[in-house]
Amino acid sequence: MIKTTIITIGDELLIGQVIDSNSAWMAQQLNQAGIAVLRRVAVGDNWDQIWQCLDEESRHANVILITGGLGPTADDITKPLLCKYFAGTLRTDAEALQNVKYLFEEVFKRPVTDRNVRQAEVPDNCTVLQNKRGTAPGMLFERSGKVYVSMPGVPHEMQGMMTDDVIPFLKKNFTLPFIIHKTLLTFGIGESMIADMIQDFEKGLPPHIRLAYLPNYGMVRLRLSATGPDKAQLSKEVMEKFVILQELIRGYLVTNEDEPMEKVVAKLLSSNKATLCTAESCTGGYIAQLITSIPGSSVFYDGSVVSYSYKAKEDLLQVNHNTLASKGAVSEEVVREMAKGALANIKSDYTIAVSGIMGPDGGLPGKPVGTVWIAVGNNEKLTTQRFHFRFDRQKNIQLTAVNALNMLRVFML
Amino acid sequence: MIKTTIITIGDELLIGQVIDSNSAWMAQQLNQAGIAVLRRVAVGDNWDQIWQCLDEESRHANVILITGGLGPTADDITKPLLCKYFAGTLRTDAEALQNVKYLFEEVFKRPVTDRNVRQAEVPDNCTVLQNKRGTAPGMLFERSGKVYVSMPGVPHEMQGMMTDDVIPFLKKNFTLPFIIHKTLLTFGIGESMIADMIQDFEKGLPPHIRLAYLPNYGMVRLRLSATGPDKAQLSKEVMEKFVILQELIRGYLVTNEDEPMEKVVAKLLSSNKATLCTAESCTGGYIAQLITSIPGSSVFYDGSVVSYSYKAKEDLLQVNHNTLASKGAVSEEVVREMAKGALANIKSDYTIAVSGIMGPDGGLPGKPVGTVWIAVGNNEKLTTQRFHFRFDRQKNIQLTAVNALNMLRVFML
Repeated sequence: MIKTTIITIGDELLIGQVIDSNSAWMAQQLNQAGIAVLRRVAVGDNWDQIWQCLDEESRHANVILITGGLGPTADDITKPLLCKYFAGTLRTDAEALQNVKYLFEEVFKRPVTDRNVRQAEVPDNCTVLQNKRGTAPGMLFERSGKVYVSMPGVPHEMQGMMTDDVIPFLKKNFTLPFIIHKTLLTFGIGESMIADMIQDFEKGLPPHIRLAYLPNYGMVRLRLSATGPDKAQLSKEVMEKFVILQELIRGYLVTNEDEPMEKVVAKLLSSNKATLCTAESCTGGYIAQLITSIPGSSVFYDGSVVSYSYKAKEDLLQVNHNTLASKGAVSEEVVREMAKGALANIKSDYTIAVSGIMGPDGGLPGKPVGTVWIAVGNNEKLTTQRFHFRFDRQKNIQLTAVNALNMLRVFML
Repeated sequence: MIKTTIITIGDELLIGQVIDSNSAWMAQQLNQAGIAVLRRVAVGDNWDQIWQCLDEESRHANVILITGGLGPTADDITKPLLCKYFAGTLRTDAEALQNVKYLFEEVFKRPVTDRNVRQAEVPDNCTVLQNKRGTAPGMLFERSGKVYVSMPGVPHEMQGMMTDDVIPFLKKNFTLPFIIHKTLLTFGIGESMIADMIQDFEKGLPPHIRLAYLPNYGMVRLRLSATGPDKAQLSKEVMEKFVILQELIRGYLVTNEDEPMEKVVAKLLSSNKATLCTAESCTGGYIAQLITSIPGSSVFYDGSVVSYSYKAKEDLLQVNHNTLASKGAVSEEVVREMAKGALANIKSDYTIAVSGIMGPDGGLPGKPVGTVWIAVGNNEKLTTQRFHFRFDRQKNIQLTAVNALNMLRVFML
């Protein structure tokens, strides 16, 4: 039975200077391969803490994946520590050295320093994982039936090693159970109301199928997770439950795939061979970048006018100066004119227009911080709605985007 | 000596479905208050795992902060577990119940169910932390000189409790050492080259001042962290070192504050009372949303034209159809015309225009995936530069944005 723990090393994780997105990516890939992650631990750049952490995690797990602490600089102590932990001796790895030299001489066009050369040193008792995307090699140790892998903290370097070396190694050396996750997305209903609606379903689940509620920005994702030895049997069983679950929350179901709202809207546009443009004030391009984060979005997305100022609204979207002056930028009339202006200028099939006050300041009499008007539609018809979000700037922006995308989704259906 | 550990609970963290941004936020706030975080651990929704984790972390730390697992649904086991762990009995807290009823009856306009009422239950031996932003109360336990706090996993609910209750409690009950962090941002130089430049400085640092390298998107942040009992003395000492460090990397210094590139550009625009507009193709609004994530950005930012399609480039920015046809959208000529079009239409003082191929597909002969043209400037002058990024779509977009902002920064200086 494979049990994995992820250790991330770096003071920056403990002072909150960076968010640990590496562990999430690793966990996702491991789960897809049927490798369950038991724990994730973050420790600082401290010899004793790291040493103790390795001891402890060895008791919890038989696969210990480590990222971080392999850079060229003095705050990196992972390599000497691992060398001592596994009682090895540092040697220079010829292939890793060749890679360092190639990167500096051919790609960076900079001289190779001693510091860079030392990056090619590895303990003599590890399997070297060559780094195809950077200078620091990875190291794989085996001891007492347990596997330890140390990888750089730079996300795309770690990702290359996980994909090319670590996951194939684990698949080869362990008998993996099957893990199946099926996730759906709901909109417009709270966690506790869903729980009441599906109470009997949930009670009737067998112990090897678990249900999780993942609330986020007015949406709740529901995830069924199942583990077992027989893939075909397990898939069949989970799919049966998943179909029932979808029926139970039918009125609130957005998608039965594990995908965000923007992906749902993107698929809807693509399948209708329709195009979209946006006119964003308060979201400042957030909706545009959500949509364009999807590869190939240029097929259905024409662009956005981010009209942050009055003059941008007037010049780029032909919003009437009098409307702005009499009704204010955050009004039904203005989002309507923004939507019409976007459709007239960009000539897409559908549009989304938003205008609001995201905070922390800027509230007006009758229009408190968090007030947002959204319009969605096409040349035939526009639908508008007023919202009042009560959170911080970032969350208000995200809620505006999600609600706008959902309004368009409903409009298109 | 206060030693803190953060435990986050939830299967979603172990299958990589969500990124743990709660721990980062908590660590940041704790550090600012002089409370060092020793470790962060994530465990699944599993009774034995959570129990064992509490035992272990009690050995490492004397303050154990827990988030997650307090929702209304059946996958939440934290509350009954804590009740048993501290040998308490569940009772209904009158104030928490009043809050639940208020939220459902007055805010959500939905009937209160039994499930919601049970959210107001707490172990009788904890101090209740009222939740001003949601239904589930927090719980604070004290045992054998150690403090345990359980908070909801919903970020803004947890944040409210940390700010209003937890940090004030810790400040009152522990003697806190001072922690000072000073961070600067460099651009255009790698980690190992910096290390060579400041080698002697780094060797000369006293043990209570540590230097960390934090590389990210072509930029490296350098952070000095110092701990000590005397705040004034420590500040003076760190500032002296920080001034020397800035001198050593002078040519690459972007800012001596812990702030991102967009904030540096924002300050530069504000201090010049100048305005900015952007014309984005390949970044799809990413630059606009970076800038508008800054509160008050409407003062210096007019807006963006996200011209994803040819027709949006022509209609909204008056890019010449012949230029697009002969040179292609990713060309020096087109970004120049985009920049000029943005300045003409939006009438800001400065502009940024970008066009590129972000991948994974879309490469052309002579223009491989990752090719980007950037123009920055004003009505008098435009500067252009060609880049070739070699990463995935998301990273290419981020690198384009950072380089564009840096080009504008250099242009303005």
